[in-house]
Amino acid sequence: MSEFKLTTVEEFEAATDRLLETGAKVGADAWQFRVKNQTPHCKFGEQGICCRICAMGPCRITPKAPRGVCGCDAHGIVGRNFLKFTAGGAATHSDHGREICHTLYCAKEDGNYKVKDPAKLIRIAKEWGVETEGKDIYDLAHEMAEIGLMEYGKPFGYQRFLDRMPEGQKEKLIENEIAPRAIDREVATSMHMAHMGCSSLPEALVKQSLRCGLADGWGGSMMGTEFSDVLFGTPKPLDTEANLGVMVEENVNIVVHGHDPSLSEMICEYADSKEMIDYAKSVGAKGITVSGVCCTSNEVAMRRGVPMAGNFLQQENVVLTGACEAIVVDVQCIFPALGPLSKCFHTKFITTSPIAQMPDAEFIRFNAETAGENAKAIVKMAIDNFKNRKPELVHIPQLKQKATVGYSVEAIVKVLDGVTNSQVDETGTTKPLLECITSGVIRGAVAMVGCNNPKIRPDYAHIELMKKCIANDIVIIASGCSAQAAAKAGLMDKSARELCGAGLKRVCELADIPPVLHMGSCVDISRMMILAAELAKDSGLQINQLPVVGCAPEWMSEKAVSIGNYVVGTGIDTFLGVDPYVSGSSEMGELLTEGTRKWTGAAYTVETDIEKLVDLMIERIEEKRTALGI
Amino acid sequence: MSEFKLTTVEEFEAATDRLLETGAKVGADAWQFRVKNQTPHCKFGEQGICCRICAMGPCRITPKAPRGVCGCDAHGIVGRNFLKFTAGGAATHSDHGREICHTLYCAKEDGNYKVKDPAKLIRIAKEWGVETEGKDIYDLAHEMAEIGLMEYGKPFGYQRFLDRMPEGQKEKLIENEIAPRAIDREVATSMHMAHMGCSSLPEALVKQSLRCGLADGWGGSMMGTEFSDVLFGTPKPLDTEANLGVMVEENVNIVVHGHDPSLSEMICEYADSKEMIDYAKSVGAKGITVSGVCCTSNEVAMRRGVPMAGNFLQQENVVLTGACEAIVVDVQCIFPALGPLSKCFHTKFITTSPIAQMPDAEFIRFNAETAGENAKAIVKMAIDNFKNRKPELVHIPQLKQKATVGYSVEAIVKVLDGVTNSQVDETGTTKPLLECITSGVIRGAVAMVGCNNPKIRPDYAHIELMKKCIANDIVIIASGCSAQAAAKAGLMDKSARELCGAGLKRVCELADIPPVLHMGSCVDISRMMILAAELAKDSGLQINQLPVVGCAPEWMSEKAVSIGNYVVGTGIDTFLGVDPYVSGSSEMGELLTEGTRKWTGAAYTVETDIEKLVDLMIERIEEKRTALGI
Repeated sequence: MSEFKLTTVEEFEAATDRLLETGAKVGADAWQFRVKNQTPHCKFGEQGICCRICAMGPCRITPKAPRGVCGCDAHGIVGRNFLKFTAGGAATHSDHGREICHTLYCAKEDGNYKVKDPAKLIRIAKEWGVETEGKDIYDLAHEMAEIGLMEYGKPFGYQRFLDRMPEGQKEKLIENEIAPRAIDREVATSMHMAHMGCSSLPEALVKQSLRCGLADGWGGSMMGTEFSDVLFGTPKPLDTEANLGVMVEENVNIVVHGHDPSLSEMICEYADSKEMIDYAKSVGAKGITVSGVCCTSNEVAMRRGVPMAGNFLQQENVVLTGACEAIVVDVQCIFPALGPLSKCFHTKFITTSPIAQMPDAEFIRFNAETAGENAKAIVKMAIDNFKNRKPELVHIPQLKQKATVGYSVEAIVKVLDGVTNSQVDETGTTKPLLECITSGVIRGAVAMVGCNNPKIRPDYAHIELMKKCIANDIVIIASGCSAQAAAKAGLMDKSARELCGAGLKRVCELADIPPVLHMGSCVDISRMMILAAELAKDSGLQINQLPVVGCAPEWMSEKAVSIGNYVVGTGIDTFLGVDPYVSGSSEMGELLTEGTRKWTGAAYTVETDIEKLVDLMIERIEEKRTALGI
Repeated sequence: MSEFKLTTVEEFEAATDRLLETGAKVGADAWQFRVKNQTPHCKFGEQGICCRICAMGPCRITPKAPRGVCGCDAHGIVGRNFLKFTAGGAATHSDHGREICHTLYCAKEDGNYKVKDPAKLIRIAKEWGVETEGKDIYDLAHEMAEIGLMEYGKPFGYQRFLDRMPEGQKEKLIENEIAPRAIDREVATSMHMAHMGCSSLPEALVKQSLRCGLADGWGGSMMGTEFSDVLFGTPKPLDTEANLGVMVEENVNIVVHGHDPSLSEMICEYADSKEMIDYAKSVGAKGITVSGVCCTSNEVAMRRGVPMAGNFLQQENVVLTGACEAIVVDVQCIFPALGPLSKCFHTKFITTSPIAQMPDAEFIRFNAETAGENAKAIVKMAIDNFKNRKPELVHIPQLKQKATVGYSVEAIVKVLDGVTNSQVDETGTTKPLLECITSGVIRGAVAMVGCNNPKIRPDYAHIELMKKCIANDIVIIASGCSAQAAAKAGLMDKSARELCGAGLKRVCELADIPPVLHMGSCVDISRMMILAAELAKDSGLQINQLPVVGCAPEWMSEKAVSIGNYVVGTGIDTFLGVDPYVSGSSEMGELLTEGTRKWTGAAYTVETDIEKLVDLMIERIEEKRTALGI
């Protein structure tokens, strides 16, 4: 018998409760308390029927006031709010991608940033029709970075990566006017359409939401992922660990949090150096432990095996351990609460990006040119802070699980090659996986993504959905905070194959993979799009015919809605556990849950009952199978 | 004695009341009723302390709930909302500018759009360092359009037009990190900074608001203005009329509404054609009257003398006359209410832009390639609709005033040349105006801009402020709906010089100008920036030293906040009569009303008491004079 045992959400919660006791001693605030203060939420806002787009308002739709001052009705207001929400997410993800392009532009043979995967760079260059022969790899890097940057602002044409779609799909997007042009233009156009006195027709607003999302998924995010691989290496399977127990009491603990690997890679580099380790020993620590929170964590876990301390709603917990010398952040999903919270402990809260400046933080501005010295200064600051720990406040919950991570598309294809009979079968394709799906050994796949949200018991939906899916022979690809929930529970331990149905279990054994494959950070959902496109091309199908669905059961950010729009825009049905502030409009509801099918072949399902949500996903996968006659 | 008499706001209101009686007969809704239904407004929204940026909320700040779920406090929430508001406005104005660049790109010798001011195109080309010698003007137009479009998305560098600023000012903006880079990038970066878990430091949010606004004013808006002049002609003084009385009962009435002159110019062109006039006569009309609402009206008034039927809060009135065959709209500030309202009458409500699609409208898609046939179809549809008028519903209020409009910077300089002793003085500069200011004959200038807002008695603030300013020898430059308020009142009639103080009156007589100079539409506030820069350069001063202020007493749109930010960013103190949803944060209040001075030398004043507002402006102008020792 296997000794494998999942960590339960109850155990997570008990650990959190213990940390909150520490918090209480020092008067720390926590999201659990703020949620109480903030509930019940405003019903107008929740339904999306509050409009603050101009200063004649705010307006709120009620039966007695069915239109705002300008005459906009609930459908227009909900639609505009939805589009603005999407634009916020697309801008955010894509701006991350832009930073990566800028980092690539600064890469140098002897610089802070190097090209670690030249083969991938050359492959993308060929895709983009850029001459590679006899070109210095750094010259090529700079040329590609500039072309990449132009994808944000080129006056004409569509996103280059749309050519990765199966035949005919880009043309269909163009025909329906949802093929994304320059990324920033789609953001700006969205903001224009949602301006006072512009679009209030739900159909127009939903179409632009799809287009803006696609500019993210097949533009900004995809460049973010691809060029991060070029710079920092394309992930390969490797072992790591997850949950707060990865922090080491005897060591200087540095927690990296945010999204952009440009920062965290450098921190890891310096924290691993003999100079810094010696310095840490000189102040009485045994060494240095870098662990991560949120997608920065996913980035360095995927490429370096850096352990994952936790996901979104665990970010305060790392400070509450009393053993965090520094929490170093870049952009996105960083609680402003970390400022005041870190002041209750010895923790240094270090912001590094002009994009994310917060009160009660130490701002050490990080940029590509000075990345080395910035990172060194940060690591040193953390080490210097070790002496300020208050031993009576130190408590690291001893919870962690093993996880095998690093499943880039390239890695997945390689794993599949391993189970191919190389004498007979073609290698370097997704065909072995397609065979498993066609035969029914695997029923389909769910892309599990997104955040935590206090509206859903944290991690519970992620973990329960995954458990039921794998028990039903549905393989999970996961990213972002969803992936971390899986890792913390143990679902990325290869032993978790014990929890699978017989078919998936056999595949996991043969391929030597866990049933939940970590594909990376939230920008890396672009990897999932590439995988879906490859599956479609290798099978001769359209993406929307595949028995594949997307799911964000605990999402919370604008980025998640942008993702939802590009996943639906790509042709993959998307299941949400939290309503995107659209319940106030029947027309928007109809469009998002059905109407988009006529343009993309996919739509949303919103179901806050998690049990029902998973059943609906399984049902949809089986419908897709039936339609294919498999 | 002059027979000149201003039309009073009371007269405006009486006319509106009469129209609302017609509306009542047909069951029409109107903003006056919707305002009643929508007040009181939500206090959280009004103070800017409601946050819907992620799906953990909405969160609202109260004494018992001082932070949102993520820990963001009132200052961060207000700051993010303010930045998002700015980004919406900057995107909107600039996207208008982009459309103009695209129209220029499509201009052809024998096409729908031509280069009407080649000298201006060549002048800007030289400014931008583009070779003009021996180049076909259309080749140059296309080259310039492409460079213009690149200003939206170029990966490196700042906005080209910043070089128009007085020496040292661009450098100071760069130093303070508020010099705008690519326009769309500033919008996207703003959205990124305001994303959940990014910036919550008010200073960072205000700086980015300034930078994003400056990308509008010295980027998108300025290109919109300059290239509109190239395409449609640079405005020169000409006579027209304003208010609903410009509609002619016997004629087919076509009302153009929105912002982009590409549409309205074509409509005017065709409505003026013999073919269409003959066709109108064939259906029993005496002719065709095109009049305008909002900034589209300003565009065609400035260049063609097309009469102005009204401003923002009068848009429903044109339909309520019962004599409007078609209201043809492009983008921005168009009440969705026009759809249902036009259904109560025979009026065709025609939308033309994919950016502004509305329910209950006929959508005739307008684009540069097919502009001629689109315009013809629209004019024809209006004429065909003449027979459907219901005579019993027809009532056009007989209110109108004469107005001399068309004061581009070029026109103002030309006017000034007229009062120059050309034997002695340099021509083609703003020096004669500076002399008037230095000598105190004119005390200073106020740039009056912005919308109407039901929170302020419509037009009252605009008109009263202008009256008091001119009586105090302060010249007014006006744009947008503010300019239309002035025109409707009669303040753009040259006879209005009677209302001026002795100094300004004398200048108006000498130069043969009205005391309120119409500089154009809301994108044309860029003209005011250019004028301020010229004044500064001609005087050897910095812009922030000039006795010039900006004022938007009745503003309502995101665009207005973007404008406010670039006016303050340019160094001109800005006075608002409506609070921009920031009263919930003392830190934001301090930054906006004082803190920005350290970066730009200017700041906001918010004062909802209009009497006090004008006194504060006059005081500020006198302070500037004192500081200069004049």
